[in-house]
Amino acid sequence: MSLPAHLKSRHLPLGDQRTGRFYGQDILSVSQFTRDDLEYIFGVADAMRNMVAHIGTFDLLKGKILANLFYEPSTRTSSSFLAAMERLGGSVIPISEVRYSSVSKGESLPDTVRTLECYADVIVLRHPETGAAAIAAQAARKPVINAGDGIGEHPTQALLDLYTIRQELGRIDGLTVTMLGDLKYGRTVHSLSKLLSLYDVNVHYVSPDLLKMPADLVAQLNEHGLRQTEHATLEGVLPESDVLYVTRIQKERFADLNEYEGVKGAYVITPETMRSAKPRMALMHPLPRVGEISGEVDHDPRAAYFRQMECGLYVRMAVLAMVLGKA
Amino acid sequence: MSLPAHLKSRHLPLGDQRTGRFYGQDILSVSQFTRDDLEYIFGVADAMRNMVAHIGTFDLLKGKILANLFYEPSTRTSSSFLAAMERLGGSVIPISEVRYSSVSKGESLPDTVRTLECYADVIVLRHPETGAAAIAAQAARKPVINAGDGIGEHPTQALLDLYTIRQELGRIDGLTVTMLGDLKYGRTVHSLSKLLSLYDVNVHYVSPDLLKMPADLVAQLNEHGLRQTEHATLEGVLPESDVLYVTRIQKERFADLNEYEGVKGAYVITPETMRSAKPRMALMHPLPRVGEISGEVDHDPRAAYFRQMECGLYVRMAVLAMVLGKA
Amino acid sequence: MSLPAHLKSRHLPLGDQRTGRFYGQDILSVSQFTRDDLEYIFGVADAMRNMVAHIGTFDLLKGKILANLFYEPSTRTSSSFLAAMERLGGSVIPISEVRYSSVSKGESLPDTVRTLECYADVIVLRHPETGAAAIAAQAARKPVINAGDGIGEHPTQALLDLYTIRQELGRIDGLTVTMLGDLKYGRTVHSLSKLLSLYDVNVHYVSPDLLKMPADLVAQLNEHGLRQTEHATLEGVLPESDVLYVTRIQKERFADLNEYEGVKGAYVITPETMRSAKPRMALMHPLPRVGEISGEVDHDPRAAYFRQMECGLYVRMAVLAMVLGKA
Repeated sequence: MSLPAHLKSRHLPLGDQRTGRFYGQDILSVSQFTRDDLEYIFGVADAMRNMVAHIGTFDLLKGKILANLFYEPSTRTSSSFLAAMERLGGSVIPISEVRYSSVSKGESLPDTVRTLECYADVIVLRHPETGAAAIAAQAARKPVINAGDGIGEHPTQALLDLYTIRQELGRIDGLTVTMLGDLKYGRTVHSLSKLLSLYDVNVHYVSPDLLKMPADLVAQLNEHGLRQTEHATLEGVLPESDVLYVTRIQKERFADLNEYEGVKGAYVITPETMRSAKPRMALMHPLPRVGEISGEVDHDPRAAYFRQMECGLYVRMAVLAMVLGKA
Repeated sequence: MSLPAHLKSRHLPLGDQRTGRFYGQDILSVSQFTRDDLEYIFGVADAMRNMVAHIGTFDLLKGKILANLFYEPSTRTSSSFLAAMERLGGSVIPISEVRYSSVSKGESLPDTVRTLECYADVIVLRHPETGAAAIAAQAARKPVINAGDGIGEHPTQALLDLYTIRQELGRIDGLTVTMLGDLKYGRTVHSLSKLLSLYDVNVHYVSPDLLKMPADLVAQLNEHGLRQTEHATLEGVLPESDVLYVTRIQKERFADLNEYEGVKGAYVITPETMRSAKPRMALMHPLPRVGEISGEVDHDPRAAYFRQMECGLYVRMAVLAMVLGKA
Repeated sequence: MSLPAHLKSRHLPLGDQRTGRFYGQDILSVSQFTRDDLEYIFGVADAMRNMVAHIGTFDLLKGKILANLFYEPSTRTSSSFLAAMERLGGSVIPISEVRYSSVSKGESLPDTVRTLECYADVIVLRHPETGAAAIAAQAARKPVINAGDGIGEHPTQALLDLYTIRQELGRIDGLTVTMLGDLKYGRTVHSLSKLLSLYDVNVHYVSPDLLKMPADLVAQLNEHGLRQTEHATLEGVLPESDVLYVTRIQKERFADLNEYEGVKGAYVITPETMRSAKPRMALMHPLPRVGEISGEVDHDPRAAYFRQMECGLYVRMAVLAMVLGKA
């Protein structure tokens, strides 16, 4: 849906004739990545991790400006992109009060994007409506990075999730990944499953019946060769899981609150739960958590969710550097 | 209304003895500019445009801090000043939630300004009340730039409008400029007309009777030698216009909604409208637009409104560099 | 309550093995400072003042990122920390809309802090609840600076108040400091009194009976050897005061509004009041003021409250540089 890369780069500043994979491109969906792309991105992210560990920040994107356009609040994601840009020596235009801005006067998303690209070199967009990122990308000459559009995509979240798995366990092929919680509405588990279908993995879905993985997505991933099984409880699959990816079950999803009360306890991870898990495994969560993982688990070396946040920094640094032709 | 420049510069940091036109001065009103000033500002803006095109950002204002103080939201203007400062290597203190800040605890504008100038080198102020910028400038030792005070002034908007005309058509003298829409309450058309009165131009005002240019302003500009004519419809004047400057007609201005419905269609620019326009002309709009210019017109090469946004960046870079003595 | 410094620094970036007083430590309470610490901090602040006066900003903290986490708005304090970090060449992640962020989705403060430290090198926290800063510091591996937690502490405010006194009068020992207004709920006067108890000073408390200094605090400071006296009116003590520290009396504190109306006039500083004050003295106020000091007093050379704001910049620059090991 975005313009081809050559059309976008055509409008980049004179003298800025860098090239490289994803240069001048939009990052809209996990569907745009091949397995080879992922390895490339993770290699750049590894380089970013090294640079941050040794020198903190560096001037790779000095002179570049990111418009961080958030139509709905997300401290975590906006802070992560902001820090990524600042650690690369670039600057940020943070726009997080869009309800009060010209958007609330009725301006269209394409007009807002076309205005911001007059000032910025790349646009990160968070929007409550599915498809918003593609609309913005079509309007923009500069690269647009989708930072979540409704129940649609949030590709850098999926990238950081997969990068974390690789980081924690050293590989992706051959792993067993268990996803737990709300698999029906959970954008992160949908996107992660799509990326995992590029690898040789086993996936277990554990959820209440009401919140099962959408059947059409399961069918689609099945065609891609992803081995998937569905379960109502964690016990059976936890001992063989290399990754346990936990998501929140929202009370609001249940018409009958008794049903919610009946299931919620089965989806809370405690030190007791962790006793049945492999000695080397990664317990992940996209955060924020609200009780799905007990605070007592935080000191377990397998609790990977804060390292997962840190991985987000490196992956977003990599994505920004790539689309700006500096990776 | 502001302190003389020498009083302000007296308080600038030691070792910062730069000089130059507008150094240490407030930018409060279009009335403070001579034609010679405008040419000077546009020359600096041209230099900024060149620098951005070739190297993106540069360190002219490295070490300088802008307090971007917005008492009412304006994503477009605040982003533009923020990007201008960042492209010059400076830093920004963005203050856009003033309703929740000490202002909402009842602090006076002068106290807020005096506090901010302890931290910053220049203050950009957007305020809902006419005259607020002059009050702030009187309190401040550091330069204050008026970014819109109620129905008062918004001088950098007028500067960027005029700079866009010069950029699009190569000159200002000898042009015919047509202004369309709400000319009664439209701050931008008032300010632009004042600046145009310094040049040899013809101005046409096209508006519903209810929203005509204020008679006293027309009389005042007439004394300055500006050739002005008023019209109810666009047809007659469009074919001879070098510039068509469109503004929004707000439904709220009409007591009788039938009257609004009757006129609004006559003030919408479509590809059909553009057929009667000169092959070389500039279609401008301060944005945001809400239907006044159809999206189909965007691909017309005469549609200058996004280039107008970009001109805003260069003009604001020029103004910031000038008041900080680095132009 | 925070982790020992060596535990925190352990997690700082490789190659970042700077040392120095307060390196890697939290700044949570005035109680953590010795008199020797204060002299050290003020020496660093003096150096910062010199640097700002001569070169504006410098790159001492280039590559460092501050997370400016404000759970309640405070333009003054957040701008001051932001400017301090920018003048040191560092970058800032401003988070001031926490009501709309993941916190409002119910995330706990420790999780938020642990997430932010994945992106930032130091966290400044403002929170409405007493004790919040200690909770955050316990969760964080990176240094936490308390920027006010409810009626608890606001240590950098006390540091800047004391630094201002030293700056205005050249010394602290031997001074008479009078505090006026709401001494019961005023966080700033409590903290300043604690710091003053490390010096040889006389302190006068002037307040309505309802808003007297808490008796247990007076007793505690008495044990530390601070000479304190309490008064209902200013007249008797003003002529001998070297410092008059004014705070706001909030109408809401009075159950009986007549009582408020009866006392408020006695606590407003006018040019008339200043006639009884010493020729060399410092009139201070933490700001914002809402009538406690008449605007006519601003031009009195003894009016130190805007210089006090400026001192806040230098003290916060000093604190940031120290905890990041670069002082």
